[in-house]
Amino acid sequence: MADASRPNRLRLVRAGIDTYQQPVVFMHRDCAVCRSEGFTALTRVRIRNGGGELVATLNVGTGDWPPTDVAALSEAAWNALRPEHDGYATITHAEPPPSAAALRAKVFGQRLDEADFLQLMRDTVANRLSDIELAAFVTACAGTRLDHAETIALTRAMVAVGERLDWGGGAVLDKHCVGGLPGNRTTPIVVAIVAAAGHRIPKTSSRAITSPAGTADTMEVMAPVALGLDAMRRVVEREGGCVVWGGTVRLSPADDVLIRVERPLDFDSDGQLVASVLSKKAAAGATHVLVDVPVGPTAKVRSAEAAEALRARLAVTAAALGIALEVRMTDGRQPVGHGIGPALEARDVLAVLRNEPGAPADLRERALHLAGALLEIAPGAAPGQGRAQAERLLAGGAALRKFLRICEAQGGFREPAQAPHVAPLPCAHHGVVRAVDNRRLARIAKLAGAPASATAGVDFRLRVGDPVERGQPLLHVHAHTPGELAYALEYAQAHADIVLIGETA
Amino acid sequence: MADASRPNRLRLVRAGIDTYQQPVVFMHRDCAVCRSEGFTALTRVRIRNGGGELVATLNVGTGDWPPTDVAALSEAAWNALRPEHDGYATITHAEPPPSAAALRAKVFGQRLDEADFLQLMRDTVANRLSDIELAAFVTACAGTRLDHAETIALTRAMVAVGERLDWGGGAVLDKHCVGGLPGNRTTPIVVAIVAAAGHRIPKTSSRAITSPAGTADTMEVMAPVALGLDAMRRVVEREGGCVVWGGTVRLSPADDVLIRVERPLDFDSDGQLVASVLSKKAAAGATHVLVDVPVGPTAKVRSAEAAEALRARLAVTAAALGIALEVRMTDGRQPVGHGIGPALEARDVLAVLRNEPGAPADLRERALHLAGALLEIAPGAAPGQGRAQAERLLAGGAALRKFLRICEAQGGFREPAQAPHVAPLPCAHHGVVRAVDNRRLARIAKLAGAPASATAGVDFRLRVGDPVERGQPLLHVHAHTPGELAYALEYAQAHADIVLIGETA
Repeated sequence: MADASRPNRLRLVRAGIDTYQQPVVFMHRDCAVCRSEGFTALTRVRIRNGGGELVATLNVGTGDWPPTDVAALSEAAWNALRPEHDGYATITHAEPPPSAAALRAKVFGQRLDEADFLQLMRDTVANRLSDIELAAFVTACAGTRLDHAETIALTRAMVAVGERLDWGGGAVLDKHCVGGLPGNRTTPIVVAIVAAAGHRIPKTSSRAITSPAGTADTMEVMAPVALGLDAMRRVVEREGGCVVWGGTVRLSPADDVLIRVERPLDFDSDGQLVASVLSKKAAAGATHVLVDVPVGPTAKVRSAEAAEALRARLAVTAAALGIALEVRMTDGRQPVGHGIGPALEARDVLAVLRNEPGAPADLRERALHLAGALLEIAPGAAPGQGRAQAERLLAGGAALRKFLRICEAQGGFREPAQAPHVAPLPCAHHGVVRAVDNRRLARIAKLAGAPASATAGVDFRLRVGDPVERGQPLLHVHAHTPGELAYALEYAQAHADIVLIGETA
Repeated sequence: MADASRPNRLRLVRAGIDTYQQPVVFMHRDCAVCRSEGFTALTRVRIRNGGGELVATLNVGTGDWPPTDVAALSEAAWNALRPEHDGYATITHAEPPPSAAALRAKVFGQRLDEADFLQLMRDTVANRLSDIELAAFVTACAGTRLDHAETIALTRAMVAVGERLDWGGGAVLDKHCVGGLPGNRTTPIVVAIVAAAGHRIPKTSSRAITSPAGTADTMEVMAPVALGLDAMRRVVEREGGCVVWGGTVRLSPADDVLIRVERPLDFDSDGQLVASVLSKKAAAGATHVLVDVPVGPTAKVRSAEAAEALRARLAVTAAALGIALEVRMTDGRQPVGHGIGPALEARDVLAVLRNEPGAPADLRERALHLAGALLEIAPGAAPGQGRAQAERLLAGGAALRKFLRICEAQGGFREPAQAPHVAPLPCAHHGVVRAVDNRRLARIAKLAGAPASATAGVDFRLRVGDPVERGQPLLHVHAHTPGELAYALEYAQAHADIVLIGETA
């Protein structure tokens, strides 16, 4: 709608402000564009520069900054548009996104079809939806508001808007854990066993979002993980398996956008969870997938009924995508392994792979259970022999050798470091461990500095049923600085019921 | 959790950035607080200064601004906290809001009770919910997701968290229009008639949110409207009625917060709409309320079925609050009156009150219909006589005299001004007017400068069924500057189907 006399042009500068993923543009209320267009705070504006364009949310300067002749872009906006330095942009009202009608329909409780979800995911990936619109979408799909057919349609749409790996035929194995359990770092072990068995398992993992460590953070302690698609493919072609960070390969990029509202809202619902997991697996070319669902009162999935509903939704969606799926419910009442935090978890992984006498037995057992289950759904498996095969590969050293070769292929193996500051949290009572609050235990590890400080975290070896004496260390906090150590201990002392001690179990 | 060695203190400065209603704080990623607390973009932080405190969303500076020793507050944050100049604040992680569990429950489809809604509305008014959380709440209550009992509970909660006017007994009348119809400015006329009949009608109105004029904008052309509660009370005690801006009286303040996400999402659902309307009426002390629901394909309520569902929800909620309610469905297919825009609508209102021969007949008729309906539900009404009584008060000049006295009591009557630039939009065809797009007509008025320029807008007198000649003016655009005039005309020419002309009606 602009004409020559109203060019709507401003010079683009970098604001140097991080607004997380939502692109924001800062313009002064007295600038010519705000005045002529009637822009106010939160107006959605379209910014065109050279061949690129971007929709951003407006924040309005009312004081000294920004100057009236510039549009200042937040980091997310700058990185999405990548304008020439000091280039000029044309700024207009953004039309409603093409998926506005579908979003509105879903908000008001209507069923959507695959074309609707495709439009929504296209707009999501193109950053045409504001945080407020994404929050409305995620809420409109929460609980039972996505039926199975819609879950399948959403999953397909998420696959369609991203890249897709083609492994040229043959079985491609994969695993996923629904999460929420500190220290549950079976993935590097399972990948090593399954690859040692001769299968292909191109695993992408996430970094921590709200937890003290993601699998990618833990793996990064031992080898580079930010590989990109081509490098990942070379590793898998050479060694059969890999454990790389999903953020650089951008499989299912819509999921990476949706997470920006799911994180502050602290929820993802079953439909979204299934679409997120299976879209990434389908995009990675997986044909046989194992999903680990830890169930426990402070895990992500809190009851057997919830686990069963999730399993049913996973099964029907996997079937529609042509993926062979196995779901295993596991004990989610307490952490797994000794360490919580990237380096501490890596130490546990290596202890298991190296068959060290002090290796955490629960992590070893769980990794064997999952690797065995995955080996049994793979083509050519001998029924009932998966677990024994996994055990042989682990105990005989084949899994360790494979793991070290994978690390070398990813850029080189390194031993986990040890934190410079370690202190115990003494137990205030004697008795028996009755329950463990996974969420607060994770919080101690985060306050100690994990995952930003890779060596930071918590070493916690007690399990439900273990007897404890007053004064005995309940756990040890590991930290990079004395301040973080004190901070985490202070929180732990203030929440003594993180480890619930009773007279009896 | 801060101790003496980690004081978490920064100097507060005003950022001079308008982020609409959501409080935002800008802190540099290298500042001591971001580093020690692990704050990242969108972290919700609590800011304590003197006796006041505030929860805000963090945006992180990564460049030259802000300096590392300050926390820079957005306009909404600054106005909410009102810190001493250059005062210091303690900044910590915000705990989840008390209503987090209720919000999560509603997102996952559970029913909430009045205590839940009360907690949610308390957090809403205290600005403890982020835009993302508010969007999730509004979506979780959309469509049929609020049942009647929940609508009542939400309405009561919205009343409970705001101020409430007490008129000391006796009937208090009020009216509300569900909106979406340009030029439908019956309120000043209805208030004048009803007050002239001896009733009490303390009317609060809104300013335009997405429309070219709200009733408060139109009224402000003729008299001051930003009065505050005490001044409003004095006007009503003296004259029986008033038409003031609701923004300064802050009845149902939760509604003022929720609107900040409803506006960018461009929806409010029935439950929210009913809670919004009736909470304001209950807080204003109303005992007898008339609701005007225009129905038409480009009005807010688009079908008879939708209107009926809304009527039922209004009725059951009003009954629960002890309010006598009358709902009238009216023709929402096309604008009412001649003018669209504050001064143009004020001119129409005065023309009707002054019984001018050229006064818009549809506005007059509609105002009499609504005033009559309201007079009939008032105590002591003679059944079937409301309309006739309204007509006598209007035709005889009593309504005009009352209106002018109300204006004087509000601070002084003034005549609407005329825009300096006026141009016609010529009709491209000849034929008969078949339909009018209310939304695009409103958009022309906004592009012309309404409501910020009070005299700007559109003068549109054609109605469905009227014959038109090619070249005849379809409408006139009024603007404060030649640029805005050109701009609005350009849009109007590009959307010739705003007024649909056919061979026959």
